[in-house]
Amino acid sequence: MSSFSLPEIQPVTTILRDKIQHKIDRKTKPLGALGHLEKISLQIAEIQNTLTPKLIDPILLLFAADHGITDEGVSAYPKEVTWQMVQNFLAGGACCNVFAKYNEIQIKVVDAGVDHEWQTNHASLYQTKIRRGTDNFKLKPAMSVKEAETCLQRGMEFLRREEFAKTNVLLFGEMGIGNTSSASMLLSCITGIPLSELVGSGTGLNQEGRNHKVKILSEAQRRGGIPHSGIDIIAEYGGFEIGMMAGAILEAARQKKTILIDGFIATAGFAIAHQLQPNIKDYCIFAHKSEEKGHRLVLEHYQIKPLLDLNMRLGEGTGALAAYPLLEMSVRFLNEMASFEEAGVSDKD
Amino acid sequence: MSSFSLPEIQPVTTILRDKIQHKIDRKTKPLGALGHLEKISLQIAEIQNTLTPKLIDPILLLFAADHGITDEGVSAYPKEVTWQMVQNFLAGGACCNVFAKYNEIQIKVVDAGVDHEWQTNHASLYQTKIRRGTDNFKLKPAMSVKEAETCLQRGMEFLRREEFAKTNVLLFGEMGIGNTSSASMLLSCITGIPLSELVGSGTGLNQEGRNHKVKILSEAQRRGGIPHSGIDIIAEYGGFEIGMMAGAILEAARQKKTILIDGFIATAGFAIAHQLQPNIKDYCIFAHKSEEKGHRLVLEHYQIKPLLDLNMRLGEGTGALAAYPLLEMSVRFLNEMASFEEAGVSDKD
Repeated sequence: MSSFSLPEIQPVTTILRDKIQHKIDRKTKPLGALGHLEKISLQIAEIQNTLTPKLIDPILLLFAADHGITDEGVSAYPKEVTWQMVQNFLAGGACCNVFAKYNEIQIKVVDAGVDHEWQTNHASLYQTKIRRGTDNFKLKPAMSVKEAETCLQRGMEFLRREEFAKTNVLLFGEMGIGNTSSASMLLSCITGIPLSELVGSGTGLNQEGRNHKVKILSEAQRRGGIPHSGIDIIAEYGGFEIGMMAGAILEAARQKKTILIDGFIATAGFAIAHQLQPNIKDYCIFAHKSEEKGHRLVLEHYQIKPLLDLNMRLGEGTGALAAYPLLEMSVRFLNEMASFEEAGVSDKD
Repeated sequence: MSSFSLPEIQPVTTILRDKIQHKIDRKTKPLGALGHLEKISLQIAEIQNTLTPKLIDPILLLFAADHGITDEGVSAYPKEVTWQMVQNFLAGGACCNVFAKYNEIQIKVVDAGVDHEWQTNHASLYQTKIRRGTDNFKLKPAMSVKEAETCLQRGMEFLRREEFAKTNVLLFGEMGIGNTSSASMLLSCITGIPLSELVGSGTGLNQEGRNHKVKILSEAQRRGGIPHSGIDIIAEYGGFEIGMMAGAILEAARQKKTILIDGFIATAGFAIAHQLQPNIKDYCIFAHKSEEKGHRLVLEHYQIKPLLDLNMRLGEGTGALAAYPLLEMSVRFLNEMASFEEAGVSDKD
């Protein structure tokens, strides 16, 4: 019997909803004219349970790990790119670094299971490997149930570190060659969307490569079936980085932080956390619709309209970083804009 | 015979295209993984004809004017809201101010024909009124052909002021109660899209109000017909602010500045300028698809995919301001990201 237990997640407090909405509606603009940004404004105000929300010390968490399924030739890039890209993040040369610098967002990289021994003790790298890559889930479960629980547990504990106490908005991204395969498996189990519709080109497979990927993943699904609990799904087809991310999302929601979800793989992290505790959805904002084929279907499944749709498919939190300014502007208009009364502007008849 | 003459607009220089694309492709990311942002990056680099583009001193230009057609009850808001909102811009209380402050973008307000005498000589207000509002174009042309030329001329001259010399990126927005009516008329003439499909709710008409607007505008179109030249179209159905904006867009393109177009009405300014000099399109980036009904059709007509689609319909440059960070990130990844070689990351096989 496992000692693992899930945190209690409260839905957002709706006690101020009418007051927040009234404040939005009295701003000097036609009713509803800021569209989606008004919804984000309301959501963040409700998460923070205040009429004057603020985004404090945003941090991007990048969860990284390797995947045994890459033995089956399901990715366009070799496996060593996972650790090489992590080094690129630490050296500041990746796209996430450029976008994060522009937005004044810190990046923290979590090694959940990269197949590499680091020669660095860089302050932004958190070495909390489960082990060096999952097993090949075409042949057997990716990890044990115990390891799946450990992923979630470590993800939750990670977010309880003192350094996150002040931060009230977190961006979730990832790095891991092969992880669109894992994410497709997890999302197929949870949403019921067939693999043939869900599986995309990942980092850039051609049509033949994608067909091969669908074939491999379908074989894996025949082997492992469709488990019901989130933990069994991670064990069968995870993703150490996706499991840890799911744990961190759960804890971030428990702490009532605003959660900005990146693309397809981060959405798989969300889906696991959501399967375990549906109330987390109240705390989540979805940054973008990725170019990865299945993302649109998954977002529709959850009835989510993401902020951006720019045909991006890079991962490493870049979609979340690209969308982040929209969160800032959503919060700021609520605090800084004048009302009709304050500005002496005539309202609609 | 008019002394008015159009500036010569060169298409963007494509001499560096292959080198810019190569630089984009060697960055540490899968080929094309930044989607739309890669296209923006290429476009700005071509506009500036450099491998290291920069966005310098961005300025939002808000063109404001009143419209005689408001006599026909085509807007949900009374006409005095135009000058009241301009005062709100100058006082810093409007949404554009909040978004501009966040993005460190200056705002300059151009009075092209507001029906108000200002009690202020605020440094950000440029008093260059044609006159206090157009005529009611349901009954007669909105302005004379001479006035239409003056709009364009003043828009061009405005952009030749010393204070814009260093700026290489301009955002175009507007304010004017009734100007979705004018914009619908202009765009229907230029694109051939029927008014019944093009006309939307503006600042917030209900279905009955929108039906009335379609009826009024259709009557106007029967009266004034469908002129062919951009100048005659402005004269018949303009928009002092739309005409001046078109002139400023022409001059901005001549100066090879990057042009960020806001929503439905700014797109009408673009359409006039484009009708006069099609090469301007090379310099234009489209910020968002507005919630205003016809905007989608007009963007499709020009085969434009805008950056954002957030159901916004506020005008005053807010869509352009919301999209601006995406331009910055597009330029910065080109300059700051490491290549595969620099980062020691393995490329795709």
